[in-house]
Parts: sequence; structure tokens; C-alpha cells
Amino acid sequence: MQANAKPLACLNGVRVLDLSQFEAGPSCTEALAWLGAEVVKVENPKGGDPGRSIFAEPGHDSFYFLSFNANKKSLTVDLKSAAGKQLVLDLANKADVFVENFAPGAIERLGLGWEVLSKANPRLIYAQVKGFGEGSPHQNNLAFDMIAQATGGVMSISGYPDGPPVKPGPTLGDTGTGMLLAISILGALFEQKATGKGQRIQVAMQDAMLHYIRLAFATQARKGGPLKRVGDQSISGGNPPCGIFPCKGGGPNDYVYVYTSRTNPEHWKRLLGIIGREELLSDPRYQTPQQRTEREAEIVAMIGAWTRNYDKHEAMSILGRAGIPAGSVLDTKELIEEPTFHSRGILQTVEHPEVDGYVMPAWPVRHDGAAISVKASPLLGEHTGDVLERWLGLDSGAVDRLVQEKVVSRRN
Amino acid sequence: MQANAKPLACLNGVRVLDLSQFEAGPSCTEALAWLGAEVVKVENPKGGDPGRSIFAEPGHDSFYFLSFNANKKSLTVDLKSAAGKQLVLDLANKADVFVENFAPGAIERLGLGWEVLSKANPRLIYAQVKGFGEGSPHQNNLAFDMIAQATGGVMSISGYPDGPPVKPGPTLGDTGTGMLLAISILGALFEQKATGKGQRIQVAMQDAMLHYIRLAFATQARKGGPLKRVGDQSISGGNPPCGIFPCKGGGPNDYVYVYTSRTNPEHWKRLLGIIGREELLSDPRYQTPQQRTEREAEIVAMIGAWTRNYDKHEAMSILGRAGIPAGSVLDTKELIEEPTFHSRGILQTVEHPEVDGYVMPAWPVRHDGAAISVKASPLLGEHTGDVLERWLGLDSGAVDRLVQEKVVSRRN
Repeated sequence: MQANAKPLACLNGVRVLDLSQFEAGPSCTEALAWLGAEVVKVENPKGGDPGRSIFAEPGHDSFYFLSFNANKKSLTVDLKSAAGKQLVLDLANKADVFVENFAPGAIERLGLGWEVLSKANPRLIYAQVKGFGEGSPHQNNLAFDMIAQATGGVMSISGYPDGPPVKPGPTLGDTGTGMLLAISILGALFEQKATGKGQRIQVAMQDAMLHYIRLAFATQARKGGPLKRVGDQSISGGNPPCGIFPCKGGGPNDYVYVYTSRTNPEHWKRLLGIIGREELLSDPRYQTPQQRTEREAEIVAMIGAWTRNYDKHEAMSILGRAGIPAGSVLDTKELIEEPTFHSRGILQTVEHPEVDGYVMPAWPVRHDGAAISVKASPLLGEHTGDVLERWLGLDSGAVDRLVQEKVVSRRN
Repeated sequence: MQANAKPLACLNGVRVLDLSQFEAGPSCTEALAWLGAEVVKVENPKGGDPGRSIFAEPGHDSFYFLSFNANKKSLTVDLKSAAGKQLVLDLANKADVFVENFAPGAIERLGLGWEVLSKANPRLIYAQVKGFGEGSPHQNNLAFDMIAQATGGVMSISGYPDGPPVKPGPTLGDTGTGMLLAISILGALFEQKATGKGQRIQVAMQDAMLHYIRLAFATQARKGGPLKRVGDQSISGGNPPCGIFPCKGGGPNDYVYVYTSRTNPEHWKRLLGIIGREELLSDPRYQTPQQRTEREAEIVAMIGAWTRNYDKHEAMSILGRAGIPAGSVLDTKELIEEPTFHSRGILQTVEHPEVDGYVMPAWPVRHDGAAISVKASPLLGEHTGDVLERWLGLDSGAVDRLVQEKVVSRRN
């Protein structure tokens, strides 16, 4: 299916030197690439970003890597050689943005710390992701997505009240952090355009999690804490109905979410009409959100008795048309099979020289009515010559010598 | 405690006209405000953004509102009056960015649709959040955070395999969407600075969820789908240990997350040393991630036998110092009581004229070593006169007349 997608030029001319790996950093630089920046991944010649091989079948880069590195370029450099390090220093002098997410202290040990790079190129925006913030008791600790979700409060408020904490399926610790870093970088780029000055930008994955659970802090201020897990409900304690209700089929995701907002009394009234309980419209026991909260079990039973008559798609359709907030619990297979995600360019099929037909979520925001077209993630070293020639003005003979000396490598 | 925080000037001079409400839109414009833009909320004189009163105690704006509207200004306009509508049209002509997240069709019915505003001000970046995308079968449906999480796949991959779907505690449907919109707006601002041209930017909450579950789509491409819920583990299927382990105390969050990455074999080796099982270092049955996956139950028991001897803070500290990715499951009360969140400016106490001592998460990214200082959310109509005078050049007499005619209102 032809997706409604085209390239975007917002950041044309912006150069990003990207030493990041796995997901938190790469998700940030991929967003910049989708906006039109030239993002050059600097990778080691022996395998590159470890994300290329994690969970990979032999013979091609992993789907994981394809997902987080679309629309980028790849240049390989041996950072252990003096000439390789000098190349990266030279590239950083030509860059607008530098991004890294190595373990604490590693970038400084490579001789590519903020003080070094910003001194040579004061307009450089130097951006870093770590697991824990400078000044945190854990500032030297390693972190991955799940460690951020554990220590950032996310897991404590996810799950059912009588069960253990849940790690939410979304990689909030990684992509959630990467998005906040992208926002700060874009702010700094806007300022750089006016002043010519760079900034140092730092985000910690644990800290970033607090941004996504602000509703929990607001609720804690009102109710006291710590907040408990609430399963399928809203952490703020919505009035019923506010949860998933079983539908026909009985499968693991055969549920429909039904919600009635306390700021719009019409939702509840419309719902009574749909489930055939109009007699309650005037019943004084159901008039306010507070009253309905007191009768929660009864209301849950009443809605469930209705939803069980329909499959989740029918239930969502009937409730949605009636102006009641409702959503079926869709699984990843149902999502990938939904035709309008493809026609709208929300899901796009990647044309990759080594991988056939990988379907991945593209940038979900539309610009002027179109999605942004996805270009396949780069092969390792695919753009080594191109970038060295354009950014540093090396001629092809000079690049050849660097290849022979094993300072860089090049895809043949 | 004095937080390490200062105002940020990245977007100084950028004017944002903000008609959004609740969380998805306001979280986006708040990020812009933190970066230094002048964000003016346009609110109805009778109560304003419904978020002001949701879950509010009488006498002051809700903590919910304070959380998502820091560093903004408030101007009240009666949009049902012709003069009020004209004022907003005039303000939109002076704005760089316009943001709204009303129900589908509402902004057009107000006469403030994209075609109208962009024709009058071609440099305007016109940004919208809806529940479902244009072209989706649900494009006219209402949505809230939980509806997006249900229909965007998030709930289907959150929870335990033998239990129902979980709604993750983070408001990913709202703030998660708002962050992606902010990135696109910032890209458009960068382009606007060069070309003087605006753009129409649209995001749907359901679509935005797919961006945060890309690891699930990558995993589905490898393993087939639909993906199942995996409780405390990684959706990609990490090798053990990868999960929460019980600690001393036995409370609902007395767990420590322990992870050993398959890309770094040292994690597993270090862990064996810490738990006193060095004899397994050379045991051929535990050498590869695949082998350890086959012995998962045994490994889980082995690690749990060690973690039960410590409270979660001790466990995290011992494991973290040894270079093993580990994180205790922290609850919202533990987080708010952690002193370094305050000293580092990750949590800041708001000085608000009607609310004492509200502690809220600030923008978690540091610029040049400091957090961005939080300024209290505006009182309803607090900046009506100020904005009309500066943006439209009205004198105070003209503003007085608008107040008398009930076109606008003003905080006394």
C-alpha cells in the first residue's frame, strides 16, 4: 500500500554526530533525522552499535536496530587509534550536535568529553544520556530501560493492587528519555541559530521517568502516598466506569476500555442510553461522580453485562459513535494488520538491502497532512567515505589510506 | 533546599497561543514554556481549562493543573462572542505557534480552524492533538489517556501473562503524545526561522503510542505475534536474570530489578561473584545467554535466595557498585523524599499564591549544568491585560472596555 509520506526538511543543514547506541540515544537522534537533520552514527568497525546484533538473526542487522536508526548514516572509526580519535575531533568541529550515551565516564576516557569538544567548537550542542543524574547517589551506576522504570517510580504504580509491580511494555526508560533529550536539543538548536553558541545538555533516565508520572505526584499531593497500583484504572482515581470490561471471545485482549469523564456529565448519560438503563438517568443515587464511586461494584457489573454481548470492535464502535470515550484493547498483531496505519504512513515498510518487508512505526506526527518517509537504517560503514569527503573535505585517496591503515572501514 | 535551577532562554521571543486543555496539549506547551517561549493559555472566563477543577480541593487550582501549566500565562476570552473570537484571530496573527486539543471538529466550529488561521498568518505553526488520526475508522471518536493506551497496543503488552491487561501508571497517552508534538513543533520553528513559513502539525494519541512500543514491533517481526504480556520482564525476551526479585520487608515495592545484558558477558560474571556462586563461572551449563535461558527457573531461584537477605536499597547499592545493572523499585513517596531530586532541581517546590509547598517534577533535562526553574501555573485571567497590551497594542482603557463588555475577564 502506498503510504501518504514524504521527506521533511525542517532541520536541513543541521549536522548531528551520533555516538549513541541501543535505544535511548538512538531514538533521540532518529527523531532529529526524521525532521531532516543529517545524523551520522560513529561506530566501531567491529560490529558497530551493539544494537545491530542484539536479538538478530544471522545475516542482517536486527529489527531492533532498524527500528531506532532509520534515516541515519553510518561511519566507522577505530576510536582506539590516535588517527581515529583525531577524525572524530575533526568531525565534532563540523557538527552542530553531538550525542552520546555510553556508561558513566567512558566518553571522557575516550578523550571526547564536553570540555574538550566545546572548547574546540563553542557552537556545539553536546548532549548526553546517563542512567542516573550527576549528584545522584547512583551516578556511576549502569542503567537500562527496566532499571529506569524500576527506580523512576513507573513500576511501583503499574500492576494490580494485589500483585507485584509490572514493567510496562513501552520502553519508556529508553524512548521516553530520548524524546525529552530531543526537545532540549531542538531548543538549543533554535538558540544556536540566533547566538552561535552551544550548550551542554544532560538527561538521566531515572529523572526522565518522573516527567511521565506527574499525574501520580499530583494525586499523591491530594491523597498522600505512596500511591498504590490500580490495575486497569487511572492513577488519579477516576469515577466508574473507568476500566477494561470483558467482551465476547474471552481471549487475553478481548476487552474494551470504557471511561466517563467527571468533567463531562453527558458521557454517563449517553452510556446509560446505550446499555438500556435509561431509568437510572433520573435516579438520585447515580447523579454525581462521587455517588457513582460509592456504587462502583454495581456499575462495573452493569457495564460488564452489556459488553459481554459484543466483541471488542463492536463494543468500541457502538460506544464511540454514541460519544462515549471507549477503546478496544488492541494487540500488536491487530495493530500491524490495520490498513489505515499503512495508508496513513503511521506504519511503513522499510526498503532495506538485506531485510525484506520489515514494517515499523514511523514518526507518528504529520506535517502538512503527510507522514515522514522512512529510509532504511544504514549498513555498517555505508557512509564512511561520503561523510569524510563532505564534512572534512578529504579526497578519495585520503579516505583510501585511512581504510588501508584500518582507522576507518568502508562497506564495499 | 535550594535547587540548582535557572530560567532558560532557548525560545525567547517565540509566542505560543495555547487553546489546549487537560494534559496532552498542555504538557507539550509547558515544555515549550520551560525552554523559554511565551505561552499564553486562552481560557473561557467561566472556570477556564477544565483541568483547573478536576480533582481539586475547593479554593485553589488542582495539583493536576499546576503540574501541566507551569511557566505559562493565562488570558480569558469569551469565544462565544464575536468580539472575543476576533481577539483570538488577532492574537493568532501575532503568534508563532497555535496549539489545540479539543474534541474532533470543535476548533473548526469555533471558526479557528487551520484554513482560517494559516490564511491570515502564513508563518503560523498550527498544531493539533486528537485521539485518532484523520483517515482512521475512529477519527471522530473521543479519547483520553487510557483510551489511547488501550487502542495503541500499550495495555496488551503490559501485565502478567496469566492476568488481564494493565494500564501503565505513566500517562503515556497524554504526556507521551505531547512530547512528540513538541518535537515536531520545535522542528517547524527551526524551519520557520529560516523560511518564514508555518506548517500544519497533527498528532493522534493512538498513533503516538506505537512510537513507544517499537521494541514490541521489532520483537513481533522476529517471533511472530501477537506479543504476550511478560510481567516484570523485557518484551524482547531478555536472558535471565531479567526481572524483579524480592527483598527484605515484603512490602508491595520491596523488590530489586536485576538485569544482565546479553551484549556484555561481564554482568553475569560479576553477579556470580556477588552472590557467592563463583564455581559456576567455569560451569559449561551457564556460559551463553541461550543456556541461561534454558535454566531460567534455577537462576531466578538462585538470585532470589541472595536478594532476600537485603533490603532493596542495600541490594541495589551492592549490585550497582559491582557494575551489575540493578535498580530498586521505588515508590512515589520514596522518590519525593529523596534529597538529591530536590538539590538537583528534578523536583521543585512551586511558589504559588494560593497553594503552599506543592512539590512537582520539573523539566528533567539539564542545560549547562542546571535545571530549569519552575514558575507557578497562572491564575485564571492573570495575564489578560498584559498580553492584550503587548501582543495587540491595546491601551488599558481598551482592555477595561473589553472587561466591561464581558469579552474578556481579568484577575483583580
